[in-house]
Amino acid sequence: MTKLKGNLVVGQSGGPTAVINHSVCGVVQEAMHYGEIHEIYGMHHGIQGFLQDDLFDLRKETPAIIEGLRRTPSAALGSCRYKLQKGDIEKILHLCQAYNIRYFLYAGGGDTMDTVHQLSQAAAGHNYEIRCVGVPKTIDNDLGVTDHCPGFGSAARFEVVTCMEIVRDTLALRYTETVKILETMGRNTGWLTASTALAGDYAPDLIYLPERAFDLDRFVGDVERVYRLKGNVVIAACENLKYANGAYVAINEDALNVDAFGHPEPGGIGHFLTNLVIKELRLKTRYEKPGTMQRCSGRNVSPVDSQEAYQVGKDAVSWAVQGHHGFMVTLERQTDAPYRCTTGMAPLEQVANVEKGMPEAYIHPDGTFVTDDFLAFARPLIGQDLPDYITLAGYPVEKPRIRSRP
Amino acid sequence: MTKLKGNLVVGQSGGPTAVINHSVCGVVQEAMHYGEIHEIYGMHHGIQGFLQDDLFDLRKETPAIIEGLRRTPSAALGSCRYKLQKGDIEKILHLCQAYNIRYFLYAGGGDTMDTVHQLSQAAAGHNYEIRCVGVPKTIDNDLGVTDHCPGFGSAARFEVVTCMEIVRDTLALRYTETVKILETMGRNTGWLTASTALAGDYAPDLIYLPERAFDLDRFVGDVERVYRLKGNVVIAACENLKYANGAYVAINEDALNVDAFGHPEPGGIGHFLTNLVIKELRLKTRYEKPGTMQRCSGRNVSPVDSQEAYQVGKDAVSWAVQGHHGFMVTLERQTDAPYRCTTGMAPLEQVANVEKGMPEAYIHPDGTFVTDDFLAFARPLIGQDLPDYITLAGYPVEKPRIRSRP
Repeated sequence: MTKLKGNLVVGQSGGPTAVINHSVCGVVQEAMHYGEIHEIYGMHHGIQGFLQDDLFDLRKETPAIIEGLRRTPSAALGSCRYKLQKGDIEKILHLCQAYNIRYFLYAGGGDTMDTVHQLSQAAAGHNYEIRCVGVPKTIDNDLGVTDHCPGFGSAARFEVVTCMEIVRDTLALRYTETVKILETMGRNTGWLTASTALAGDYAPDLIYLPERAFDLDRFVGDVERVYRLKGNVVIAACENLKYANGAYVAINEDALNVDAFGHPEPGGIGHFLTNLVIKELRLKTRYEKPGTMQRCSGRNVSPVDSQEAYQVGKDAVSWAVQGHHGFMVTLERQTDAPYRCTTGMAPLEQVANVEKGMPEAYIHPDGTFVTDDFLAFARPLIGQDLPDYITLAGYPVEKPRIRSRP
Repeated sequence: MTKLKGNLVVGQSGGPTAVINHSVCGVVQEAMHYGEIHEIYGMHHGIQGFLQDDLFDLRKETPAIIEGLRRTPSAALGSCRYKLQKGDIEKILHLCQAYNIRYFLYAGGGDTMDTVHQLSQAAAGHNYEIRCVGVPKTIDNDLGVTDHCPGFGSAARFEVVTCMEIVRDTLALRYTETVKILETMGRNTGWLTASTALAGDYAPDLIYLPERAFDLDRFVGDVERVYRLKGNVVIAACENLKYANGAYVAINEDALNVDAFGHPEPGGIGHFLTNLVIKELRLKTRYEKPGTMQRCSGRNVSPVDSQEAYQVGKDAVSWAVQGHHGFMVTLERQTDAPYRCTTGMAPLEQVANVEKGMPEAYIHPDGTFVTDDFLAFARPLIGQDLPDYITLAGYPVEKPRIRSRP
């Protein structure tokens, strides 16, 4: 095999994660090892910036800054949510030729993989040799083929620690905080919402996943049942819950919040369910909506996730240099306990535009919790050394005899 | 002075904080040193539990558990929001007599200090010698006399780190994330909301404090101005904003959410302002509502706050043993730089039911930011070693000449 000499570009797409920069760090540090890779460019705001000739020269950054990517959440290069327009792929290909880019690495989810796939095909059609590689990234964990997605473990850890804390808060104020709802991200799949179950004693009582059709009456009945049993109810609800007819349970009230296809975006499930519980059950209810904190918090990074995110970036480069192209790096779990995971490759057409939901075996038959199989799947991904909070044993004191009592 | 021999009780009241357990740790560890203190009781859910004879025997907990209180957020003894009923103070006094309690320590805010004050006066009226001491605690920082309140520094640190992260997230998706609103706690004072300004380059563009009357048109104008200038707008808004006529800007939609006095509780400012911006300015807008995470997160503890919370608990006991009573422990700042703070005492009547707002000198004349004086006040309280996130220098790449361009 002859070496493919030229420049490399790396970009970030879609919602940031706690570790997407760790992948870019892996890409850049690995690329430095190969003489055939000359310039190392970064897309400023992904493909949207690239289309405007907006690139960064990553070789000029100091090694300390590049290493610092491994402790920095969010997307340091800037990201984008850009729906490809007609002619964009050809423009991107022209730009790649103009910049002599021979290694094209793009980190993102299913839509992003479609972009990489299209570019790969267009380049082949024009006999331009370029190695297009997808770097997996999404807190939603909804990519196909790969065992799980970099970014998910840290977001899941955020949910777990958040539950450990807000459930404690609810129990501390048990006489006044009756119902608490945590609104979680995850789009159309329940992976992230389900991960709250890993909080063990501090897991929510009820977990609502978009894989199951939402039913208003059943929900109200669930809340009432737990309330009667325990006196307090903590609920995790995914942002994109749908009714059986496919309609979102909660949508933004204004037509401005539509997706790239003009469909109304879901939003406000916490607000909606809170008002529902108050109205139907007359219970004091509040909700927490950490929103983008779930994807950009650097305080909950899973060490496992960080390492894997770095590795997929590194392997994307080393495999491309070896001659592979048109693939996304995957994570392949070898064993659960001890957890061992290697990397692999999946053809881009198998992952482009795919949205992998939770399998039935991971959802409790009653539809409001997860199974042990899910816990076994997700537990290694959030990493060890969760906060070591104590609980008082609570030795009761014997009641004294009080003279003045009747 | 003769030694006052008997038992001690400590309780936690109101919303939990990241460090209220640190104060209890200080109380218990200090109390262990004195032979005159026999039993060490904990109120299970504050005065509400105490009224039901619900006490814990803290001498039976292991030293490791007691020490573990210093790394555990929320209220380990359980807390309460309880409005005293007629006859309650007499019941509490009877219970103190029955349990031979001579040291009564209660951690909380202004309402809590009123409870301690009433008990202190009732005991004097009955010639029952008991040393009642208030331990300051509130993330709202609204207690009188004391320079600041334990719990505030850690909650402020939570806001600062959250802004460092969500502003990065907004900038990363600058083409699609236009307006982001962070709903902050703080009740009727703006201390916590204002603390977001400490995020420096990642501070919100606009900060809305309850000390200033809210005006819908001015708000919309502010957002539009920043949007035209920067293309993105990040806003911090306190939960309890009011109009000039005293009405809350956003209230919970249901009469169930009323306070102990029957007034409707404020709530939902993030939701309200988001819909307002969408309607008036047609800008894509979202909000984050970390809710109780602000008061119970153990991942953002300010080392300064932790140390001070411990110290006020410790001093509450040592001064009571020395014969002082009827006071709240205060923090007295000696110097800003280097930050040095000692403890003192304030008579309970000076702090009971007081709500200290931000002084005018801390609010920027335009009403949507803070002054340097506020930053100097608040900066030492959040502690050092904030996350060390990097930013790429972003060396632009020279545009190539592209043949295929017109």
